Amino acid sequence: MADIVSSEEEIKEVQEQLVTPWEVEAKDGGKIDYNKLIKEFGCQKVEPEMVARVEKLTGKPAHPFLRRGVFFAHREFDKILDAFEKGDKFYLYTGRGPSSESLHFGHLVPFMFTKYLQDAFKVPLVIQLTDDEKFLWKNIKLEETRRLARENAKDIIACGFDINRTFIFSDFDYVGGEFYRNMVRIAKCVTLNQVKSIFGFVNEDHIGKVMFPPVQAAPSFPTSFPQIFGDEKKSKKIRCLIPCAIDQDPYFRMTRDVAPRIGFQKPALIESLFFPALQGESGKMSASNPNSAIYVTDTPKQIKLKVNKYAFSGGRDTAEEQRQFGANIEVDVSIKYLSFFENDDEELERIKQEYKTGKLLTGEVKKLLIDVLTKMVEGHRQARAAVTEEMVDAFMAVRPLPGMFD
Amino acid sequence: MADIVSSEEEIKEVQEQLVTPWEVEAKDGGKIDYNKLIKEFGCQKVEPEMVARVEKLTGKPAHPFLRRGVFFAHREFDKILDAFEKGDKFYLYTGRGPSSESLHFGHLVPFMFTKYLQDAFKVPLVIQLTDDEKFLWKNIKLEETRRLARENAKDIIACGFDINRTFIFSDFDYVGGEFYRNMVRIAKCVTLNQVKSIFGFVNEDHIGKVMFPPVQAAPSFPTSFPQIFGDEKKSKKIRCLIPCAIDQDPYFRMTRDVAPRIGFQKPALIESLFFPALQGESGKMSASNPNSAIYVTDTPKQIKLKVNKYAFSGGRDTAEEQRQFGANIEVDVSIKYLSFFENDDEELERIKQEYKTGKLLTGEVKKLLIDVLTKMVEGHRQARAAVTEEMVDAFMAVRPLPGMFD
Repeated sequence: MADIVSSEEEIKEVQEQLVTPWEVEAKDGGKIDYNKLIKEFGCQKVEPEMVARVEKLTGKPAHPFLRRGVFFAHREFDKILDAFEKGDKFYLYTGRGPSSESLHFGHLVPFMFTKYLQDAFKVPLVIQLTDDEKFLWKNIKLEETRRLARENAKDIIACGFDINRTFIFSDFDYVGGEFYRNMVRIAKCVTLNQVKSIFGFVNEDHIGKVMFPPVQAAPSFPTSFPQIFGDEKKSKKIRCLIPCAIDQDPYFRMTRDVAPRIGFQKPALIESLFFPALQGESGKMSASNPNSAIYVTDTPKQIKLKVNKYAFSGGRDTAEEQRQFGANIEVDVSIKYLSFFENDDEELERIKQEYKTGKLLTGEVKKLLIDVLTKMVEGHRQARAAVTEEMVDAFMAVRPLPGMFD
Repeated sequence: MADIVSSEEEIKEVQEQLVTPWEVEAKDGGKIDYNKLIKEFGCQKVEPEMVARVEKLTGKPAHPFLRRGVFFAHREFDKILDAFEKGDKFYLYTGRGPSSESLHFGHLVPFMFTKYLQDAFKVPLVIQLTDDEKFLWKNIKLEETRRLARENAKDIIACGFDINRTFIFSDFDYVGGEFYRNMVRIAKCVTLNQVKSIFGFVNEDHIGKVMFPPVQAAPSFPTSFPQIFGDEKKSKKIRCLIPCAIDQDPYFRMTRDVAPRIGFQKPALIESLFFPALQGESGKMSASNPNSAIYVTDTPKQIKLKVNKYAFSGGRDTAEEQRQFGANIEVDVSIKYLSFFENDDEELERIKQEYKTGKLLTGEVKKLLIDVLTKMVEGHRQARAAVTEEMVDAFMAVRPLPGMFD
């Protein structure tokens, strides 16, 4: 099991920076060291040649998240590209833990990128809503997690996924049949020692936590979706590509370790940075502090207030000093956010240059960000309002995906 | 959690006699001390007054297994009788781990008794085939466990269950929906420490073992079968009675501990002795030694050979000594088996008396046993031959049970 981080390394990691599926914390409140994370997790950097190859293969410009290093790390993404080049099939798998009523921009990042991948490669996509995980980890009623899963599905659908190529499911509804059989096959290959080491479980934890990693692993294997990929003989060798934030890597290190032992391809991964909190880049945004993030349900007024009041500034204390010395754009959250969402590369470069050199003041940069976010939220609001209950039923129906490889 | 045996007690138990769902071993190859087991497990003895009450309530003679103390221990069986007396509903739940092609007489014991309970109380019954458990514990292919589950279902159906009141399911087919949701609810209430203590799991075990106890617990709760018991509001308070061998008690101690915390009644239990191996009463029969048990597929010739060659005798070494001193019927396996399967109380008493006093020789008692077993096997063979694939489909169909409380 070469690619599972040993418990010794995990413990060392905890003392410095902590990255697990449930907690992200930089050392001493500083920045997450992503190069170190790549090294410790054992994944690869996405290099410019890989981005160029994606553009060549798809005949489309790469998504800004790919060009700008938001999706910065991968495992065997090159093999997915090899397969695609040869005309072999693959599918996408991503997901969300439905713990809150509405999504913030950090939640949207993997879905925006997944939509780009689906459109560019024209491949089927499965989206897992881990209502069971949220029930197990949070003090929340089971029925409430199911309701939130369905509400979150509306926000996901609003990202523009192709209904002919997308299956959205909640674990509490979909677990069963071949999916359950794959969960059990996976569970037979992983010891308690391993999950304790990978996920930090302890003997005082309830066994629901121990049950869960196979649930998140199972969608990496195409036979978990016989209605989509057909019977085992036809589907077993189809590859899976998982776009996700890098904190989900431990699940898929485990999955990749198990895959060949039960006759499957290892899932490939393409992994993103964390979307920073308004207050700065020391961790992920926190659902428990609504002022740490912009939500897709925020009003223009709320967006304006949150950005102006909370977005950490790299600008100088006074306008005069800013004119004279310019801003530190490395720590400026408005610049970070614009790097995610200002699609125009030249405009982004101009803003960064002018802010760095003092031509732009913090308030002006924040105004530009507020405009971008307000437009996005308004677009999302309209798209979500158009999502009917019937559309949710249609996306979540267990069914073949007729146009999946067209 | 008062009724879960602490790990200290479990360890002490291991040093003396070992009884877990996977292993039964008496101290120094002697007899299982059932009184001690009752005390250590914390269940109650079935007293003669309780048997009389069953006869009065059902208007039927008690099954020989009940009259003769084969089902010797219980947990809250009295509350089931109280409920029945008041006209409240309950259902039966039993099961089998499908690890072998055909069943032996030890396997039949709980099913014979369950059929009696179903007929006497006129209640619905769910039968779980734990193909997932067998896949997880044995070196056996997943598809093979599913095939064995279906083959075993035929033997179970041949015991004469009422199709209008019986649902047979395999975990690999049925887990999902409300059953899965109950598994997760249960898992959230049990810690790793607890399953390590109750079941003896260690960190080197795979997590499939840790996943399984909630699977065996879930059928104890009526909402796991919405197609039978209707929606939660109607069904949640229906009681469950589990007839099983006492080695399954640890699962249901765990289940009973969890039940009130998730809003269910604790399942009641009625628990049997182990059916002894032909070689003697030191443990359960072993599937790995075909000569330790009589199988329902054995020919009359095989039965004759096995009983004559392997059935441990309490008789004397020579006919002369036997005539003079009589047999020790406490250790004689033929007498044990006749105590299970000779339905005529007077005939059984006569055999025991005459054997004890030397009037009957071992060979003569074995002949009587061979006749009883041969008749039972022939009856079972005919009943099983009449079980069609369509009948298996019908018993295993997810459906309402129309006549369940008629």
